[in-house]
Amino acid sequence: MPAVKHLMTPGPTPVPAPVLEALALPILHHRTSEFRGIAGKLNEDLAYLFGCTEVPQPIVGSGTAAMEAAIVTLLGHLRGGDGKALCVSVGKFGERWVKVCKAYAIPADVLEAPYGQVVTPEQVEAKLKADAKIKAVILVHSETSTATVTDLEPIARLCRARELLLLVDGITSVGALPVEMGWGLDALVTGSQKALMNPPGMGFAALSERAWAAADKLGKTAGCFYLDLRQYRSKTAENDSPFTAAVNLVRGLGVAAAMIRAEGRENVWRRVTAQAKALRAAAGPLGTPLFSSAPADSVTALVLPQGVDEKRLRKETVSKHSVQLAGGQGTMEGKIVRVSHMGAVTMDDCLATIAALADCLSAQGHKCSAKEALAAAKAAV
Amino acid sequence: MPAVKHLMTPGPTPVPAPVLEALALPILHHRTSEFRGIAGKLNEDLAYLFGCTEVPQPIVGSGTAAMEAAIVTLLGHLRGGDGKALCVSVGKFGERWVKVCKAYAIPADVLEAPYGQVVTPEQVEAKLKADAKIKAVILVHSETSTATVTDLEPIARLCRARELLLLVDGITSVGALPVEMGWGLDALVTGSQKALMNPPGMGFAALSERAWAAADKLGKTAGCFYLDLRQYRSKTAENDSPFTAAVNLVRGLGVAAAMIRAEGRENVWRRVTAQAKALRAAAGPLGTPLFSSAPADSVTALVLPQGVDEKRLRKETVSKHSVQLAGGQGTMEGKIVRVSHMGAVTMDDCLATIAALADCLSAQGHKCSAKEALAAAKAAV
Repeated sequence: MPAVKHLMTPGPTPVPAPVLEALALPILHHRTSEFRGIAGKLNEDLAYLFGCTEVPQPIVGSGTAAMEAAIVTLLGHLRGGDGKALCVSVGKFGERWVKVCKAYAIPADVLEAPYGQVVTPEQVEAKLKADAKIKAVILVHSETSTATVTDLEPIARLCRARELLLLVDGITSVGALPVEMGWGLDALVTGSQKALMNPPGMGFAALSERAWAAADKLGKTAGCFYLDLRQYRSKTAENDSPFTAAVNLVRGLGVAAAMIRAEGRENVWRRVTAQAKALRAAAGPLGTPLFSSAPADSVTALVLPQGVDEKRLRKETVSKHSVQLAGGQGTMEGKIVRVSHMGAVTMDDCLATIAALADCLSAQGHKCSAKEALAAAKAAV
Repeated sequence: MPAVKHLMTPGPTPVPAPVLEALALPILHHRTSEFRGIAGKLNEDLAYLFGCTEVPQPIVGSGTAAMEAAIVTLLGHLRGGDGKALCVSVGKFGERWVKVCKAYAIPADVLEAPYGQVVTPEQVEAKLKADAKIKAVILVHSETSTATVTDLEPIARLCRARELLLLVDGITSVGALPVEMGWGLDALVTGSQKALMNPPGMGFAALSERAWAAADKLGKTAGCFYLDLRQYRSKTAENDSPFTAAVNLVRGLGVAAAMIRAEGRENVWRRVTAQAKALRAAAGPLGTPLFSSAPADSVTALVLPQGVDEKRLRKETVSKHSVQLAGGQGTMEGKIVRVSHMGAVTMDDCLATIAALADCLSAQGHKCSAKEALAAAKAAV
């Protein structure tokens, strides 16, 4: 079962060979100075990537686990009280954080936009002005399901001016789009299998001093155990962990984070943006309009022409061109395809994707020219 | 930084070369038929190992996450009611499940024994007879911190006779000691980094029909999201997952579970028992008594002689013999060393450990003979 040559899905993303090698190294016990040295180097490189002074908390689990940990640890104190969270939702992941709030009985309002559209800072401001009970904002920086980016920095300023906590799902933004804790975020979360170029299995949550102060308001009956980030802080500071660390994944992440640091995060962002620009420019000639009115650079969603069978299309891009795409989730299923620009994918992968799309769309009777699409892509960058 | 030759810690345990190779394979996307095929084979082999008809639920997280998932999903309905759980605790992990109950406000009594001792089925029976409010029992089959095994099967019969739920931490027992869901257990949990011979990062929770019925009593406000096992069941049945699967670890686990199945679980249990017998027989000549009055076969804890510096001892077994041991946790720190018999360690590793202990204990002025210790070990099996 050979792997596809161009894994263009927005997570998991391709894992570079040096990372795969690190993953296959014999086991190091997690309570050894050797392991703490590796974890310490990773922690430093992650702090650089997240733009924060305190190192992000590592959680063994999916990105969802890390975001849930941030929500329950920072907002658990809102349960049974008068205050509430505002969930800004523009897609499936925004909806997920609403479900997390509900699961923990954390009061939450939802400010949402239809799939493919975005919530503006002005809309957030109006909502905050109208409701003084809102004590925190939860939002998705890059909404993977709709390939939509939310304008985070002005929303962060709004939150700071009102002393509200701001929790950011950066799962497909950290390491792909400009974002940093220094903007005044209180939680910033990512997962191992996106821009961090590793297999799925770990998440990271960077927290601000304000976040830790909010966590202190949680009682002893925290409402959770494994995801109570208060257990992690002192351990993480010593490059240790409260529970058994995912030792091989930490090694793989160490290699990947060092690669990012060597390249420079700004250069990585530029690389991601260039691919996004190229694919967006090709969307016209391909006859596949952008699904999002505010397209993210980390992932692009293209609307398929009427009559094109999405399942067949994605099957054929694999079988004919070794290009794996993602489909749409929920009501978007069958209507869009999504292409990642994060991590170890390159402009060559992006161009191969464009050529594959042109060929496989044409095979279904949709007229489009690979030559024109590729020319437009190359001209855009 | 070379890996130690004999990694004798009770998790992580050594990972065999074919598993390491599988971990380093290029990424497969989790929503593909190829991946579901691999997950399906793993699920079948795990059902064999757990002795259950329904496949265990895979959770990306540590063993603690999987056990917490079982507790909150099965016992969450006890919150705010009259019923309660009984936590049988004989060490640090038993204490952890008490903390988990507290975190979720699940009422729980504790029946405990001092470290190194065990709670008997008779003690459990007396407690159950005395308190009709107990609706569930949580216990640790093999308590890793004290190397103590609890006599599970009679306790399972007690629970069945009273229609109580029985949740079992089998983190260092599944794949090492005889245990199976067929005994009438309602939850049986393990982690990837013990007898399953993989890096840390995944846990598994097998649930009974009764367990699922108890889970149905949980409201929509489950009290958690990521660890709510109700989200997993239908996905697992289709070899899929509600959240991004740890694709590489699933591949590694697939190889390891197939190795166990090929060897036969009874043969694996015998291999573990043989090593435990050998080390226990060597304990006398080494002058390091067994810490536990009910020693588990999966891990052995030896009490260090007065005057022996545990940190120095463990450092020297690594530097002189490439043998890595675990120390004691909490109040047991400095007083014991622990040796694993789970997974990919062999009788040769066990004998190398005995020789290393004899040499490094002697170096600290404790008189003992490697020759006698090894002879006793070999005579025992």
